Amino acid sequence: MAEDSTPPVDQLAATTLTSSPTPPLQKAEFSNRTLIKTILSRPDGGAALAGQKVTIGGWVKTGREQGKGSFAFLEVNDGSCPANLQVIVDSSVYQLSHLVATGTCVWLEGELKSPPEGTKQKIEFRVHKVLDVGPVDPAKYPLPKTRLTLEFLRDVVHLRPRTNTISAVARIRNALAYATHTFFQQHGFLYIHTPIITTSDCEGAGEMFQVTTLINEAEKLEKELIKNPPPSEADIEAAKKVVEEKGKAVADLKAAKASKGEISASVTELTKAKENLSKLEERSKLRPGISKKDGKIDYSQDFFARQAFLTVSGQLQVESFACCLSSVYTFGPTFRAEHSHTSRHLAEFWMVEPEIAFADLQDDMNCAEKYVQFLCKWLLDNCLDDLQFMAKTFDKGCIDRLTMVSSTPFERVCYTEAVEILENVKDKKFENKVEWGIDLASEHERYLTEVVFQKPVIVYNYPKGIKAFYMRLNDDSKTVAAMDVLVPKVGELIGGSQREERLEVIQQRILDMGLPLEPYEWYLDLRRYGTVKHSGFGLGFERMILFATGIDNIRDVIPFPRYPGRADL
Amino acid sequence: MAEDSTPPVDQLAATTLTSSPTPPLQKAEFSNRTLIKTILSRPDGGAALAGQKVTIGGWVKTGREQGKGSFAFLEVNDGSCPANLQVIVDSSVYQLSHLVATGTCVWLEGELKSPPEGTKQKIEFRVHKVLDVGPVDPAKYPLPKTRLTLEFLRDVVHLRPRTNTISAVARIRNALAYATHTFFQQHGFLYIHTPIITTSDCEGAGEMFQVTTLINEAEKLEKELIKNPPPSEADIEAAKKVVEEKGKAVADLKAAKASKGEISASVTELTKAKENLSKLEERSKLRPGISKKDGKIDYSQDFFARQAFLTVSGQLQVESFACCLSSVYTFGPTFRAEHSHTSRHLAEFWMVEPEIAFADLQDDMNCAEKYVQFLCKWLLDNCLDDLQFMAKTFDKGCIDRLTMVSSTPFERVCYTEAVEILENVKDKKFENKVEWGIDLASEHERYLTEVVFQKPVIVYNYPKGIKAFYMRLNDDSKTVAAMDVLVPKVGELIGGSQREERLEVIQQRILDMGLPLEPYEWYLDLRRYGTVKHSGFGLGFERMILFATGIDNIRDVIPFPRYPGRADL
Repeated sequence: MAEDSTPPVDQLAATTLTSSPTPPLQKAEFSNRTLIKTILSRPDGGAALAGQKVTIGGWVKTGREQGKGSFAFLEVNDGSCPANLQVIVDSSVYQLSHLVATGTCVWLEGELKSPPEGTKQKIEFRVHKVLDVGPVDPAKYPLPKTRLTLEFLRDVVHLRPRTNTISAVARIRNALAYATHTFFQQHGFLYIHTPIITTSDCEGAGEMFQVTTLINEAEKLEKELIKNPPPSEADIEAAKKVVEEKGKAVADLKAAKASKGEISASVTELTKAKENLSKLEERSKLRPGISKKDGKIDYSQDFFARQAFLTVSGQLQVESFACCLSSVYTFGPTFRAEHSHTSRHLAEFWMVEPEIAFADLQDDMNCAEKYVQFLCKWLLDNCLDDLQFMAKTFDKGCIDRLTMVSSTPFERVCYTEAVEILENVKDKKFENKVEWGIDLASEHERYLTEVVFQKPVIVYNYPKGIKAFYMRLNDDSKTVAAMDVLVPKVGELIGGSQREERLEVIQQRILDMGLPLEPYEWYLDLRRYGTVKHSGFGLGFERMILFATGIDNIRDVIPFPRYPGRADL
Repeated sequence: MAEDSTPPVDQLAATTLTSSPTPPLQKAEFSNRTLIKTILSRPDGGAALAGQKVTIGGWVKTGREQGKGSFAFLEVNDGSCPANLQVIVDSSVYQLSHLVATGTCVWLEGELKSPPEGTKQKIEFRVHKVLDVGPVDPAKYPLPKTRLTLEFLRDVVHLRPRTNTISAVARIRNALAYATHTFFQQHGFLYIHTPIITTSDCEGAGEMFQVTTLINEAEKLEKELIKNPPPSEADIEAAKKVVEEKGKAVADLKAAKASKGEISASVTELTKAKENLSKLEERSKLRPGISKKDGKIDYSQDFFARQAFLTVSGQLQVESFACCLSSVYTFGPTFRAEHSHTSRHLAEFWMVEPEIAFADLQDDMNCAEKYVQFLCKWLLDNCLDDLQFMAKTFDKGCIDRLTMVSSTPFERVCYTEAVEILENVKDKKFENKVEWGIDLASEHERYLTEVVFQKPVIVYNYPKGIKAFYMRLNDDSKTVAAMDVLVPKVGELIGGSQREERLEVIQQRILDMGLPLEPYEWYLDLRRYGTVKHSGFGLGFERMILFATGIDNIRDVIPFPRYPGRADL
């Protein structure tokens, strides 16, 4: 599709609904309203629905009184699609001034009508009855009607999904998530929930967030000690004295051959005194602050009885399922506590990580290529209206890019060749020097995919020195069976590898990297018992959304962005 | 379906594949192997496939040499279904002793053959070529062939998915997750990723895990200070003296009207000396330990510049999307730092939380009922073989229960009536006394659903005192529009409510509960601007799996259970 041939709205509907050209109006089953999408996203733009009585609910995008206040036009959106339904309401039906403010919620009964000839829309809605209104005081509404920057919107994260851009991103994100599940389910993969709280560190490096209850416990204790101070030495001495006395009393009674009843009563008193003493001694040991042992924090007192972190990847854990269920994937949040303030990094982001048994690097690349193409095609089939909005507003080329990627076989080039290509580039000066052994920088990746090949590129067989220990060592002993998928606009979208399945080789790789074996013993067990050739990759879900939408800052493609200094709500 | 009428295996295949009675063999697209499920789960048990050459991969469940070592039988499983493929391999093809150990991984080329008459299976596989083997030393394998308890398996969490039970649970869990997405997508709901790290506390109470980098930073600093001790007072005094001298030198040169060059060189030296002093002064302030301010932990130094926690629910955040996109849901991990050692609680668990605009409590109950029924039907349609395994091994009644729930309208009874019913129970003595105002205990919930109604029950309109501030106050001012879905075996499966959409009412409810308004201002904004009647609920995903499988302990239905003292891997 050429950049400037974006189809008009009525063609669009035909495109998005090819499988059922005239779908029925869909009532939201658990709410008394008809989805506006099912009115407007029809081949005829909804024209044939004239005369139908429906109930709709949504929020006013823009409203204006007309005809000297005798009626009002409202553009109403219910989130089901980017388009608004044009609503006409008479002043005899409701006080118009209470309806026209941007952001007002309206729930309306009425009738679909053909609009006057020459108007843009094919159908409009005339209100018979107002069921409910959620008003807005326009003087106080934090989202004025003027065009707002994405940066401004990050400060009103709870209201920003009301904007065209953030709601379109939400629908695209939703579509990509369901497409992800559908793709892997269709291919027999099982979805595995890998843990969020972990005691393993996947990469053996990386800044991780700590998960703890120690600080909270320490604060509780401090408060308690202020309210109820620990016993003094004198208190303990006094309690010791009581024990002594009670002990002596028992001995005296026994010596005097007193009655069983008397002795037993006296023993009970002694026991109580001893209990009291040990309680006081226990309390006297309490110290404000996090509990320490030998000068170090005593993690045996933490919730999990050891140090725990937020996961940086579910890969190692999902491998334990691949090594018996064959084809699996995980899709969940991952975390990096890096102090990077770039437009490409979040502290909390989502990753899709399939893992395939009986698969080598070629199979892995095949899966990655098919998956990315499936995502692109899915968006074109299901979100074309939202993509057209993004093309109009942010990135003219986004639909072309999706179309190209969905239908073009990915170029595959080994790392050594990619470096040679980059070394011979004459028309551009890179900021980072290219030579065999470097990790490709974003500028190199984008040059390969955008300029050299002008399509997605898979670079494979990277130097072992720049890759993780679990990647399979190639026969040249210099490279590993790793691969990165590079796409225009974002560069690296996917990183993956065939995993090292040979016990001795992976043990040596761990040691060579200066890592201890002990924390990986469970992972090594997967190689010790019934080891299998297997491969997998990770797709940064937000990167995929950046690629699809053309939005520049990753903070705008996740509902609640977390980055240094910010975790609103 | 009566409890003892579990269909034999060949009927089962017909049941699970009703829509396509003779599906083609499915090659795993990204791996050179045919899914064993597509061989065995056919109406004829695979009989018609005799003569086909295929490649399979999987792990040996049991193996034995036969015919004086001339051939071996292997039961091979690839995780695609609970059934094993019977494999025959000749001693001329491979050394049999390397294949027969339980847990061995095998990748095999061969031919499907009709077995001798009178054998149980309808098809077997004769090996032509062994592509790869991952051996097992049976003397060391941590999973002996003897029957293992689920409790034992919790100590080998990385290997336990190799067992029949944990792999069946994984397939059921996968099916329920995809069913969840499919249900909500079909009904026009958008999937929203609510945040895991949060600075809001949903319930205004609850034990939360803290997420921090402060401890890590403090430990780094401590190490650094040992390696490179802070300056002494003498160091600082000396540096001050240098500044003084350099200042005097500048003054002297100026007084002497020295050349511009001389003065400027001298000023440069002074600036350097000042910088050095201020660096030393800065370093002298460094103290080991977490940085404090006014005796309290200085959270401005933490990663998010404030205290942050793991979410206990995505509800409040997802409401901000419902109040513009209308029908949304979240499905993700949630966390409770409760020290409960029961079989019903995890520190990390998954929740499904839909939120519907323009919906009241009735709509909410309709949605919950339809969703639970959809899940049950989905399992019966897609996982009958796994359910039959669970029925055989853990819970004879699980298939009946799913069938009943999928097809029986849920009873709806208000709280007041439910309490009256329970107060009049004569045949059972409850441990917890029943009276109006109490929160129903599990024993009450199970009695209602299992004994009184013998079907799922929705109890609604609970006393406001035992429910959260965001639940809509009923006109009686005593109850709120809350509802719980109770099912046999687990009791409460779902908790939900209509949300309080009236600004003044919800503000008062927050204050009445002794909570501050400030942290909820963003949430109140949803009522201030375009407020809408809306409702939602939360389903505990692991509870649903307990319900479906009949397994007793929640630690066995999540891949990597987290609970006090344990977070393996």
